[in-house]
Amino acid sequence: MIMSLAYGTQSAAAPLERMEIERAEPKDDEIQIEVMFTGVCHSDIHQAKNEWSNTVYPCVPGHEVVGRVKKTGAKATRFKEGDIVGVGCMIDSCRACEPCKDGDQNYCEGPNGWLATYNGPMTPATETQDASNMYGRDNTFGGYSDTVVVKEDFVLSIPEGLDPAAAAPILCAGVTTWSPMQHWGVKAGDSVAVLGFGGLGHMAAKLAKGIGAKVTVLTSTPEKIADAKAQGADAAYVETDKTALTPLAGTFDFILSTVPEKHEVGALLDLLKRDGHFVVVGNLDIVDGVDNSKLAFKRQSVSGSLIGNLQETQDVLDFCAANGIAPEIEIVDIKTINEVFTRVENGEVRYRAVIDMKTLS
Amino acid sequence: MIMSLAYGTQSAAAPLERMEIERAEPKDDEIQIEVMFTGVCHSDIHQAKNEWSNTVYPCVPGHEVVGRVKKTGAKATRFKEGDIVGVGCMIDSCRACEPCKDGDQNYCEGPNGWLATYNGPMTPATETQDASNMYGRDNTFGGYSDTVVVKEDFVLSIPEGLDPAAAAPILCAGVTTWSPMQHWGVKAGDSVAVLGFGGLGHMAAKLAKGIGAKVTVLTSTPEKIADAKAQGADAAYVETDKTALTPLAGTFDFILSTVPEKHEVGALLDLLKRDGHFVVVGNLDIVDGVDNSKLAFKRQSVSGSLIGNLQETQDVLDFCAANGIAPEIEIVDIKTINEVFTRVENGEVRYRAVIDMKTLS
Repeated sequence: MIMSLAYGTQSAAAPLERMEIERAEPKDDEIQIEVMFTGVCHSDIHQAKNEWSNTVYPCVPGHEVVGRVKKTGAKATRFKEGDIVGVGCMIDSCRACEPCKDGDQNYCEGPNGWLATYNGPMTPATETQDASNMYGRDNTFGGYSDTVVVKEDFVLSIPEGLDPAAAAPILCAGVTTWSPMQHWGVKAGDSVAVLGFGGLGHMAAKLAKGIGAKVTVLTSTPEKIADAKAQGADAAYVETDKTALTPLAGTFDFILSTVPEKHEVGALLDLLKRDGHFVVVGNLDIVDGVDNSKLAFKRQSVSGSLIGNLQETQDVLDFCAANGIAPEIEIVDIKTINEVFTRVENGEVRYRAVIDMKTLS
Repeated sequence: MIMSLAYGTQSAAAPLERMEIERAEPKDDEIQIEVMFTGVCHSDIHQAKNEWSNTVYPCVPGHEVVGRVKKTGAKATRFKEGDIVGVGCMIDSCRACEPCKDGDQNYCEGPNGWLATYNGPMTPATETQDASNMYGRDNTFGGYSDTVVVKEDFVLSIPEGLDPAAAAPILCAGVTTWSPMQHWGVKAGDSVAVLGFGGLGHMAAKLAKGIGAKVTVLTSTPEKIADAKAQGADAAYVETDKTALTPLAGTFDFILSTVPEKHEVGALLDLLKRDGHFVVVGNLDIVDGVDNSKLAFKRQSVSGSLIGNLQETQDVLDFCAANGIAPEIEIVDIKTINEVFTRVENGEVRYRAVIDMKTLS
């Protein structure tokens, strides 16, 4: 048993504070990672505060984790000590269902679905799986910690040339926007609109631009327009600017909504071309205003998408390294994490906070 | 000018009655068709009663038209006198926009979109089109008539072996359900659910079965369950039967909603597999209950689709002929058309009324 340091919380009402946690020694197929950087995702806040009503305490958030391999299990061969590696939202899946066999671990249909990096239930993922193969706790602990232990096949390789701190947000914000663009075939020359310009939205815009699409950012925050353009967007407008948007009717192949709140899509469907896709990744509520008098006349779709699979996660890391793409990050001290949470909630971070885990010691 | 007999209405409140109308002589690229059979589509009623607030009177409905070629324009070469032909929902499009160039005339983006077989505006479809090429009336007149005159490239060939009366509903109800199954790639072995079992729904079930899919019908009318099975559905349930539907969660590749009213889709999304498509063709309202906590976790889509293009219409006619598929029809006398409308509105027709145009004389 490794005694490890982490930041976590004991209840929905309590702030995150330093705590000592147990981490299992790496088993045969696992590796132990010394965490260097962990991105702060909005869902860390939802989970820590039990806003999804499923949090098990103590809760240690963090699923955008980059670190250095410290120890490898006896049969773990993919990585060696010192390698820079990443861990995203998942650390296991059933490996037996159709999605898992197709490599879509993020849509695992095993009894418990995929195992989340934190707050994942410590129960076997299949009926035949050996319970002793699990981690001996009620819930998984995430990357706000000096150490994580993960099955090696759920560990990503951080390519050389990618700054380890900037790589962290690619593991969630990056792949969550990359995966739907790949699935729905966004390609060079396409017109893409990104709705919402925060952690996910700014990555979506950079990745779409990297693919060669023409990118338009639609934001609720006028002050972000200049940033969006500076980061490479071809155009950026306030999402309610009818004068700007009316001439854009029927011009987009793909609209990706990264808005983290429930919102209307009715007027936005007007912006899509025939056979256009409107994909929602930022929010899990009812999508209001899905109007079939619009969908049918242009054979449009409204779709959802959840994170991305392991191969897509490796692909987007490699794509970012090869194309010089990196999220805009602000490196923070873990001792300020509660203030950082408030700033994320207020939309004040530009554009992703990343914890430097050296500040934990 | 041909003086022609038709059934139409002079106002939203008036019943349909026999009237004399003018039909232009066929121009170079047109053919004149002696109408044999015309299907009664629910939209005929919406239009005749101005329920879409866009009806121009007098209104002569009918867009499931089968007849015999009587006269061909000087440069019309596709058909000869005596050929059995069909006319569906469209009789012209701009031919210049991207959808038209792609063969998707049903998504024409010309200034007026595609020209509807009835109640279509008699204005040029493109800015450069010669207005004298149009029909010299305010609005197009449909197939509740002894004669129609149509540009030959919007005329379909009715294959030998297809009963001309039964062919009529294929021109709208058939292609409207065929087109989305083709577009979204429904194939042999897929599991397809058809929601609603009327004119469109019963054709959807027959076509999906013909493709080789496993077909489940979901209806609001318990008495239709036996019919659905008799017509080849593998299973049929009342759509609110939770005992039957709960075990079917996550089992359908494709759900086609043919329900002609606004309805909730929330619970139905549970029935879809990963990457499943829920396509609405029966209704043009807001689709209620599009829940991204369901869509995202299985990367599902909710989509619309409008009729089908000319090639798809010919394809579904040929497919029906080759596979012995025909709608269930009830041949009616045009003098009873007002009672037939009431029976359609009450869901009493099994499953499509087709007017025998001999009864007009």
